[in-house]
Amino acid sequence: MFMSHTVRSYDAELKYLEKKIVEMGRHAEKMIKSSVASIISDDLQLAAQVIADDVFLDEAERDIDDKAITIICKRQPMAVDLREIVGAIRISADLERIGDMAKNIAKRAIAISEIRQPATFYRGLEIITTLALNQLAEVLDAYTNRLLDPINAVRDRDNKIDALYTSLFREFLTYMMEDMRNITVCTHLLFCAKSIERIGDHATNIAETLHYIITGHHMSSDRFRDDAVYEVRVEDKKKD
Amino acid sequence: MFMSHTVRSYDAELKYLEKKIVEMGRHAEKMIKSSVASIISDDLQLAAQVIADDVFLDEAERDIDDKAITIICKRQPMAVDLREIVGAIRISADLERIGDMAKNIAKRAIAISEIRQPATFYRGLEIITTLALNQLAEVLDAYTNRLLDPINAVRDRDNKIDALYTSLFREFLTYMMEDMRNITVCTHLLFCAKSIERIGDHATNIAETLHYIITGHHMSSDRFRDDAVYEVRVEDKKKD
Repeated sequence: MFMSHTVRSYDAELKYLEKKIVEMGRHAEKMIKSSVASIISDDLQLAAQVIADDVFLDEAERDIDDKAITIICKRQPMAVDLREIVGAIRISADLERIGDMAKNIAKRAIAISEIRQPATFYRGLEIITTLALNQLAEVLDAYTNRLLDPINAVRDRDNKIDALYTSLFREFLTYMMEDMRNITVCTHLLFCAKSIERIGDHATNIAETLHYIITGHHMSSDRFRDDAVYEVRVEDKKKD
Repeated sequence: MFMSHTVRSYDAELKYLEKKIVEMGRHAEKMIKSSVASIISDDLQLAAQVIADDVFLDEAERDIDDKAITIICKRQPMAVDLREIVGAIRISADLERIGDMAKNIAKRAIAISEIRQPATFYRGLEIITTLALNQLAEVLDAYTNRLLDPINAVRDRDNKIDALYTSLFREFLTYMMEDMRNITVCTHLLFCAKSIERIGDHATNIAETLHYIITGHHMSSDRFRDDAVYEVRVEDKKKD
């Protein structure tokens, strides 16, 4: 339940933070899509664009931090307003990191350009990217509409992304062992998959922050917040 | 009398945040050392200990967040005090992530246990770990003593860690190409080196937050905040 503020400019300040977060989210989504597309289609121009685009998120995060602190000083907010402001600081940090992940993928697109591989090599990366993008879209929608319901679903689905990453890890290791000419590319693709898996983690962080904004309580920490680590060992092939 | 008591307890609240940050820092340092030791000496018990130890950082981060928000509500701090409090929230987030990195390394120690490799495989990881630990120690000392001087040095040295990571990337790829039985272990060691490189990034983030606490200004963003990406391509060996 939001109390209406007597001071209209205070409302405008809070709205500004929210608007900026949504802008950051849309920008991050676009960067993720373009970065993975640049890897798959060996599009160096698109990769360069993603790298250049990251500045927007860095600046937006700073802007939100500065504005948030100014609002806290000026308005001395309590309860849900304070949680909104602190939440905006946290969410913008997650979105900024997502931008860094997309930028890293774009840099890898440049590093492995001209080493073309069969389409099968990229299929897993496409699938995990779609899952992560769905998570991010759902959590941004939940943020905009202050929905509590999708939060648990987002959290649960993060386990699926982790599991898919683990199976991709095995797959890429198998390609490397089949032919050592695959080693460089597959190592880079493995790091790309890892970046996408981490984007899923950041989406889940945002869901948890949103839960805190709405309810005032932290979610129980039964989710492992660290990155998925490949647990299954791939049988090393014997050198003949 | 009442006033001075109030002021004293406010001071105590700020001191509490600082003390907790330093505790988190010491704990994170210990986890990094133990995680890398567990990989190098194949010590599964030590790895399990690191994984268990991570809970402390998760709980400490939450504690700092909760206390910080309580202080903001109760004391309505201005200027440097507010920066101290917001800075504590940011620094604790970085330290919590450092703990996650150490935990990931410990999990990889378990994943690759029993696959022993020559000591040369681990040398680079030891060196990069020493560099990252030095960065963390220096930045924690600067935080405790509110020193501005070491901040630029910490930032500059992060480039050396990035460069070392890049050379380790090449080295591990070479080991993989030399003998495909090295692929599984070297991939895990590569991710460990990446985690250490990211610990260096977090130490630099802390340095930048400290600069903000002391001066009230953000540092210029001429540092690339994203993780180092391996740019140089290792010549893929031809399969004969």
